[in-house]
Amino acid sequence: MKTQQAMTQPVMVNGLDVQAAFDTIDAIKADPGLARFQFRAANTWISGGTNRSTIRDFYGAGREDDSREEPFEFMNGEPPVLLGDNEGANPVEFLLHAMAGCATTTLVLHAAARGITIRHLSTKLEGEIDMRGMLGLDESVSPGYERIRILMKIEADCSDEMLEDLLDVARTQSPVCNTVCRPVPVVIERAA
Amino acid sequence: MKTQQAMTQPVMVNGLDVQAAFDTIDAIKADPGLARFQFRAANTWISGGTNRSTIRDFYGAGREDDSREEPFEFMNGEPPVLLGDNEGANPVEFLLHAMAGCATTTLVLHAAARGITIRHLSTKLEGEIDMRGMLGLDESVSPGYERIRILMKIEADCSDEMLEDLLDVARTQSPVCNTVCRPVPVVIERAA
Repeated sequence: MKTQQAMTQPVMVNGLDVQAAFDTIDAIKADPGLARFQFRAANTWISGGTNRSTIRDFYGAGREDDSREEPFEFMNGEPPVLLGDNEGANPVEFLLHAMAGCATTTLVLHAAARGITIRHLSTKLEGEIDMRGMLGLDESVSPGYERIRILMKIEADCSDEMLEDLLDVARTQSPVCNTVCRPVPVVIERAA
Repeated sequence: MKTQQAMTQPVMVNGLDVQAAFDTIDAIKADPGLARFQFRAANTWISGGTNRSTIRDFYGAGREDDSREEPFEFMNGEPPVLLGDNEGANPVEFLLHAMAGCATTTLVLHAAARGITIRHLSTKLEGEIDMRGMLGLDESVSPGYERIRILMKIEADCSDEMLEDLLDVARTQSPVCNTVCRPVPVVIERAA
């Protein structure tokens, strides 16, 4: 009876249902098309450096997702030194938030799959940028970040070597970090 | 008297103070170091695919910014199909929000500098991703976005040719789009 009860309760590591994760991996191995996702956002300009995004639907695991009753909404803004009034964080800051979250979730998931319990994980990010690029004042200056540094504080029930390996997984397998690290085609098309 | 009054009022185009923008450009031309910015984020893991970022201070225009009394806070989460409970948008979705905002603000700023009034600007973004990369199931699959498409609807008081040129500026000079388009070094270091 005790065994039966144990078998029906999910095994949670780092807040993740490990069996569900392995079931997902098995399903993808059997049908790689299930791994194809399309994420989406819609954004409307308001004024100056202020604009608002809504995020809700996406395609993944072979179907349109319908799990979100309401869309998420996020406002971009700019600080006064960049001609705004702090109506929101600015886009290059949101990019750091995305990187932090993605590195963290990727690491936590891979740790769970290896049975490693994470006790603490926090990051600080710094990104260097030269605004002459965006302003078009110097063609030799890239408009984007020159480099991004993620300082990660982590405590886990594993050896230092295993921790270094997990940091490597976060760096190489995090979708957002990988999107930043390598050249990804961006196409802007004009809607009719 | 009327002329005097007009001269003391800022000339706003697209919600931006154009004179302030040109003053900034002149200041940067005189001292390129003013264009150097460092943006920052701090993130703490909560559980599973849930983590929270705070964003407040940054360095730019030769000083530490102190314009934000409170930090911005954003929560990353995951949908059920990715083992979460929609605690927030997920990191790859936040990346699309950052791209939308950055392309929009870059276009609006450059339009203002050219005296072009934007009447409407909205974008829809789609990003394709194959989760086998993040899961480490196939080394030939990149963990990040394969490509990102920005569909932009724009109405402005200018010729079609000028509009195409503005779209090109958004694509090439937006800091977030440029960060995604080209390989940017990402370093993850372990904090003591």
